[in-house]
This record gives sequence, C-alpha cells and structure tokens, in this order.
Amino acid sequence: MRPARMVLPAGVSSAVFARALSELRRVVGAQSVLAEPEELAPYRKILIPAAADEYAPSAAVLAATVEQVQGVLAVCNRFKVPIWPISTGRNFGYGSAAPATRGQVILDLKRMDQILNVDPELGTALVEPGVTYAQLHDYLRDRSIPLWIDFPGGGPLVGPVGNTLERGMGSTPYADHFAHACGMEVVLADGRVLRTGMGSLPGSDAWQAYRYGYGPYLDGVFTQSSYGVVTKLGLWLMPAPAAYRTVLVQYPEERDLGRAIETARPLVLGGTIRNPCRLRNATLMLTALYRRTDLYQGEGPVPQSAILEAARDHGIAPWNLTFSLYGTLEQIAPNLDIVTRAFASSGGQVTADYHDGAQANQLELDAFSLLNWVGGGGLVWLSPISAARGVDALRQDAIARSILFRRGFDYLAAPTLSGRSLNYLVPLVFDHGDAQALERARMCFLELLQAFADNGFGLDRVGIDFMGHLARRYGEVNRDVNRAVKRALDPNGILAPGKSGIRT
Amino acid sequence: MRPARMVLPAGVSSAVFARALSELRRVVGAQSVLAEPEELAPYRKILIPAAADEYAPSAAVLAATVEQVQGVLAVCNRFKVPIWPISTGRNFGYGSAAPATRGQVILDLKRMDQILNVDPELGTALVEPGVTYAQLHDYLRDRSIPLWIDFPGGGPLVGPVGNTLERGMGSTPYADHFAHACGMEVVLADGRVLRTGMGSLPGSDAWQAYRYGYGPYLDGVFTQSSYGVVTKLGLWLMPAPAAYRTVLVQYPEERDLGRAIETARPLVLGGTIRNPCRLRNATLMLTALYRRTDLYQGEGPVPQSAILEAARDHGIAPWNLTFSLYGTLEQIAPNLDIVTRAFASSGGQVTADYHDGAQANQLELDAFSLLNWVGGGGLVWLSPISAARGVDALRQDAIARSILFRRGFDYLAAPTLSGRSLNYLVPLVFDHGDAQALERARMCFLELLQAFADNGFGLDRVGIDFMGHLARRYGEVNRDVNRAVKRALDPNGILAPGKSGIRT
Repeated sequence: MRPARMVLPAGVSSAVFARALSELRRVVGAQSVLAEPEELAPYRKILIPAAADEYAPSAAVLAATVEQVQGVLAVCNRFKVPIWPISTGRNFGYGSAAPATRGQVILDLKRMDQILNVDPELGTALVEPGVTYAQLHDYLRDRSIPLWIDFPGGGPLVGPVGNTLERGMGSTPYADHFAHACGMEVVLADGRVLRTGMGSLPGSDAWQAYRYGYGPYLDGVFTQSSYGVVTKLGLWLMPAPAAYRTVLVQYPEERDLGRAIETARPLVLGGTIRNPCRLRNATLMLTALYRRTDLYQGEGPVPQSAILEAARDHGIAPWNLTFSLYGTLEQIAPNLDIVTRAFASSGGQVTADYHDGAQANQLELDAFSLLNWVGGGGLVWLSPISAARGVDALRQDAIARSILFRRGFDYLAAPTLSGRSLNYLVPLVFDHGDAQALERARMCFLELLQAFADNGFGLDRVGIDFMGHLARRYGEVNRDVNRAVKRALDPNGILAPGKSGIRT
Repeated sequence: MRPARMVLPAGVSSAVFARALSELRRVVGAQSVLAEPEELAPYRKILIPAAADEYAPSAAVLAATVEQVQGVLAVCNRFKVPIWPISTGRNFGYGSAAPATRGQVILDLKRMDQILNVDPELGTALVEPGVTYAQLHDYLRDRSIPLWIDFPGGGPLVGPVGNTLERGMGSTPYADHFAHACGMEVVLADGRVLRTGMGSLPGSDAWQAYRYGYGPYLDGVFTQSSYGVVTKLGLWLMPAPAAYRTVLVQYPEERDLGRAIETARPLVLGGTIRNPCRLRNATLMLTALYRRTDLYQGEGPVPQSAILEAARDHGIAPWNLTFSLYGTLEQIAPNLDIVTRAFASSGGQVTADYHDGAQANQLELDAFSLLNWVGGGGLVWLSPISAARGVDALRQDAIARSILFRRGFDYLAAPTLSGRSLNYLVPLVFDHGDAQALERARMCFLELLQAFADNGFGLDRVGIDFMGHLARRYGEVNRDVNRAVKRALDPNGILAPGKSGIRT
C-alpha cells in the first residue's frame, strides 16, 4: 500500500484545508472530524464498478444537531470546501457513502438518529437522517403501534431519509417513498432553515398530514439534488391491515413476460392490487438458494439449461410475479377471486399463500443474497423506466439479456410494475476485487445504460460515477434549469457538486 | 361611467406600451391582442370581495401555439411588461381571470385547446391549457373510452391544466389533481421549453406514465407559482369501475362533526374508502333547494331554527357526509359492510344509494347553486388545512361559525377529509353589486383568514387579493426561497408578479 496522502478538495490548498478542518473541529468537536485514511476507509468502500480512489473523500464530519450542520456549512462556504451530505451512507449499488467527485468532505448525519414523533392515529412519523428502517420498525413493535414499515430493496439498515431523497421504492402500497413523505426540514447552503409545506406555518399540526402548503410545492426539488441538507423528514406509515395474502404467479415461458405485464396493469390501475407487482426471473430467484459456482464453474454466464434445471428443482418458473392483497379476509376474498381468474387465464399458475416479508412489514436481507451469487462485493443497479406495457418489458428484456450475455454476465431481472410505469430493475453483480471483472462490469453497465436510453428507456437513478452522463441524456434545458436553481440556492456550489450531474 | 382609460403596467410609459402591443400584434395577429375596455371586460369580472379596478389588466393576448407563447414572452422581456397566464380563466372564488396586480397583460391560453393524446390502456391524457373538463369528458364518451373524469368544485367549464396548477381537488379517488398529473411542458421566461420527468428523454413513452424522471423532481415548483407557462400537462385518468355506491351518512347533532371525522379517518387510511369524505352542513345542503330569501327576509344570517326546520323537511341533517365505494359488486359488498357498521356505531344514519355526480364522472353544476343563495355573484373560498382530527374540525367549525354570524353572514361548510388532512372548506357568498356587502365580506374574509392562521390552520390557496398576505403567514425563509427560484428562472420578473405573493 502506498503511503496515505490527504486528498484535497479541488482548488483548495493544504494550508487552507487545514484551517477549514480546524474550524470544523471547533463546530463539531475534534472527535467528530475524521481526516486520517483509516478513519475514512468506511466512506471509500463502494460496490459499484469504479475505482474508489476517484471518489475518495477529503474528510468526514459528523454533525449531531441542526446547529452543527449550520456551522459546518458556514465553514464550507467560507473556505469553498465542497461537502457531501449522507444520512446512513448505505446507498448500495449507487456509490454507498462516497461523493460524486474526489475530494469532498462527507457530512455524515448518522448521529442525528432521533425518531422525533410517531402519531399512531394519523399514521405519520417525523425522523432525522440517521434513523434506519430497522430502528423505526423496532420502535413501532416495542410500543405495539399498528403501523407498517415499507422496507426498501437495500434492506433494514438503510434509512428512510436517504432512501426517500433518492426516490427509492419499496414493496407495499406505500412503495413510492417520496409520494408517502410529508414535510421536510432543510438547512439551506446559507444556513437558514426551511420547513416545507405546512411546517412553515406557526402552530400548524398538519406538517406531516398535508403535503403542499401554500405557493410552489418545493419538496420535489430536494430529492436527487444538492439544494439543501434535509435534517427532518415526515413519513406516512401504512396502518397494519387486518390480514394480507401474498400471491405468486408463475409463467412457464420466458416470452410470457409481456402477458404478465398486460394482465397486471389493469388490476393495478383498477385498485384491486395496491402494491407493486414485482417479477423476478429464474436466475434472480436462484440467488437466494445458490452461489453461481454451485451451478456452473466455467467462464461467462451460467448456461440457461443449468438455470432452468435448478429452477425446476425448486419450483421456480422463468418468470415469477408477486404482489399482495391487504384488508380483512372479507375484503381480500373477492380481490383474490379477480386476480386468480385474470392471471390464470393469461397462462400463469397462481399460488395464494406465498411469503415475501418485504410486502408485509418484515425485516429481510434478500438484497444481500445477490452479493453472494458471484462474491467479491460488486453490485450496480440499472433501473430503466418505461410505460407499463408488455411490449416495453419484452424490449427491455431483449436489451438486457443480449448485452449481459455478450459481455459474460448473468442476467438477473426484477421488472416492477407500479401504477402506469415499469421499472425494469437489473442488478449487475461482479467481483469488485478483480480489476478485470470490475472494468468489464463498468463497460457493460455503460453499454446497458446507453442501449436503454437509445431506446427511450431512461434510468431514474444512477451511481456517482455516471451522474453527469445520465443527466446529459435528459437534455440541456432540464440541466440548465437545475443549474439555475442550484446557483440561486447554493451560490458557492459547496453542496454535493456533481450530484445528479448538477454543478454551479 | 367614467371615460375608459388604458391601464398601463407599472413603470411602463404609454409610448413603450404602445410599442409592446404593436410587437405583440406581430406575434399573435392583431385580432388576438385585446386592449379596448369592452374587450377586456370579461377578464375584469371577479367574484371575490375586491374592487375589480384594482386588478384591471392592461390588455389580453390570445396565444394559439407554443411558438406564440415564446414570442409573447420575448416581447414582454424586452419591454418589461408583466404577463399573467391563464388557461380557461375560471378560477372562481379566487380571482377568476384577473391578475394579482393592476396593469398586467393577460396571456389567455384558451385557444390552445387540443386533447393531444388519450391512452385508453394506460389511463393517461396529454392536454393543452384551454381544454376543459367537459371537453375531455365528452371526448371520452364519444369514443366510448372507459376512463373517468374527476370534476373539480368549479364545475365542468374549468380546465384540468389551470385547476391542477392551482392544486385543486375533486371528488373521486383521483381528487388530488396534482398527485394525478404526470409530466409538464413549460415555456420558461427566456422562451426555452422544458419537458419535465421522462419528457426530456428522447424516445421515452413514459412521460405520462412516470412522474419523476432523473434529478430534482421539478413539477411541484410550477404549481401555484409564476416560474413558467405550462403549455402541456399529462393527466392520469381513473379506469371506470364496474360499479360504485355513493354513501350518505347523516349525523343528528352539530357536535357530531368530531366523531364523523374520527370515524372516517381510519376507513380512509386503511384503504376501504378511496375518495375524499366530504361533509356538508345543513345550510350548504339547502343552497341546492332554496334561495336564502325563501327562508328568511331579515338582516343577518338565516336563524338556525329556520335552517333546521327547512333541513328536516328535506331529510337533511346538521352534518351530511358522503363518499363512494368503487369496484365490482363483490368488491363493494364487504366495504359497504365495514363502513356501515363503523358509521352506524358512531351515531350516523347510513344511506347506501345516494347520488353525487361529481363522485361518479357526471357533469354537475352544484357549484353555482351557491351563487344563487344570496344572489349578486359574490363568492370567495376559505380552505384552512389541519390534520384529519375531530378536535381540529370542531375548532375550525367554532371559528368559522362565530366570525360569520357576528359579521352577519350565513355559515356554509364543506369540511373534506382526504387521507391524513382535513380541508375545512367554507364558501363566503355575498352580493357583489352591493358595495357595503362587498366591504363586509372582505373584512369577514380577512378576519377568518387571520383567525384560522392564528390557530395554526393555514389556507392552502387564496384569491389574488390576499396572496402576499397569506405568503407572509408561511414565513420569511419560505418566501425567500421562492423569491430566489423566481429570480433564477425569471430574472426580469415578467411572469405573473405577485402570484402566490412572489416577486423578484
């Protein structure tokens, strides 16, 4: 290992940076400013196919209060030091805790971990950035509050603030996390504190109850952005239903993907199914049961014959669709009749007592079986978006399949229908420790991103390494509007430069 | 009548304004620039308790294309002429078509009235600003497309673009109009055209299917704002359900309001009721059957004894709550059991075959019976927001009742529970032609606004005459953020100055 050197922010001399660190220590305490390489190692660890060194932070500052966040921003403005806020730092498969460019100071908010309020009657919560889904789940369980958590794909150690701000998705009727957030507290770059919606009206009890307030509805611009540091977020929580049934529909042929989507869409739009319909292909299902080497020891993707054989052994179909029905048993019964008839007549085999904890308030660690499939801790997600149409799903399937196979990777897929759209989720797993595999993964990811976008399927989220690239895909006017707002709210550009491709 | 004089924009000389008008005529054609007093009369007509002269426009320009909108903005930037965009101009009870300050040029978009696309399978539409709800309803009916319209309170001649941008509410499960909008085209002050969400990704078919796109989610900042001219809006339309049942719950005592809310809330949060629960008090119900003078010819509010007697004659209760259940008859049955049991045990009398067209895709003109109660065309809405709690409803009831009665007005109320919030809608009706009544209404409105806000109940929407006042209630930081964004996107401040209290 080379001798550790401090990574300086761009344009900041070592003398100036030393003064900045010294000021930061005054704000948060010496123990809460980390600048030694070994202290920073956890912030450098990424799963995406990129060289961690290109995204190495300069330091990390742990703030414990809103006042400390304000103090940190004041120092960063004064010394023009870029700062990358993280909540729990578990943005797995998108860059984890690392900044979008080398040489930013991490603003780690994990110590701000208070559940400030839960209203059992309204089904709302107000939380700080360091709160995790597991923590909120346990809080509710310990107090016997009958509200459910919607766990994100990244698992229970992820936090609702970070996940919601990245517009993450879960598995229950509250899967669209941003759509079920209500009210933010945001520390602006100049240190002023904005409360959105009803939060800026003194005495209102509707900050977590009504999303819009008066005038422009601002919350959306603080998602996937760098316009402020969100220090409190309101959440809507689903009342625990009297009962639920998780339904599995299995399709015998790979080409059945299209008809699965066509069958699910009207059931979702009509309100019979209220949570996302998630399909998983056989390979993805097998990651919960096997490592890849259990099935195949050669180069390149596991042969489809081996996949299908292993799948058959475990009752796994080429496409496996799940969703749940919630309510009293009396409410569930007619819905179950309707979905059973619809999916059966589309050629699916329906099982009405499947288990999927994420759809029912249960902590699961599914996400990590993915990492064991290959081993070596490499993971990056593709999430191309289309209308919820069978033909679109088939086109995305063809693109993903051909590129992954050609480049020697297994094809894992979890196309998810939510309302009118389809998020064709594809995780790309690889051995992060193998430099060649990492480079192959990176090139494969880029080819997939480009092929999807060339066909009109834009990703809705991307890792730190392709933020500028993806933002360019969404055009010049969009980029310029984002930039104009950025300059208005953060004129020195200290907050997360490069986040979502936005710079001042 | 005094001789008509041209109303000049602030700081613009008559010579400069004449040049601006001449340039505008070049852009849209001479026939489409209206500057004569009689031509402008329709834009001056307001229902709110304010002097129309204080909000008199300087001219009106009718644009028929995006290119014309761009041309108009270029002229306005060049001559620093403020421009007030309207879609159909029917912002009844909030200022109709009139601008927030005297001397703006109306940009009337009613000629942009194309339904650009309806996708029957996805349940989406793409419309221009001049499209009305009635037009869209007829379009669907004529083509037998089984999608429903969610009519707003203002009736069928209102347009979905204007109503959604004002964050209007309807009556079906799609009542939150902004939450069911998907994708905007916005002409920015500098003439550039932004398409939000997936609309800026070439070739995407998800512009009307997926709301968020990549990076900051911008759509919210174009609602209740002056940051751009929305020229296209995507809408989600509800698939026509197989059946529906509209339920009426009647409570025998005025104090039952609290328990009505407490009973409705868990049914809404649990998903059994999917549209807003709207309560109407006896007086509001009677506006559909009587004029006020039919019941009472004296000064001051109609005595409560006369209200209750007339109500009894027609089977109207002190509080009348309605909502609907949608689905197949098999799906409706268990839901009807649940709601019937819950409301009956709270003391309500349940009727399961009520009629309310707005909850079921039917054109109605209810809104206008309000205007006939007093006559004389005066109407302004109060919409204080609270959490959906019985105690809040009772407090709002007490505030509204005492102030209205003390100031000699009837108390009409339509508290509406949507999800976790309560919008305590109170229309104030008066004779607009009676100068004294108008001034009394204005003072009463102001006292109500202040009393609600002092108690933590902020209005979520307000007429052109109180925009600055209400914005101040939401605090300095909120106002400064709005202003910073305004300066970034419209540096000359030509777009709708004063809208939502925002100026450059």
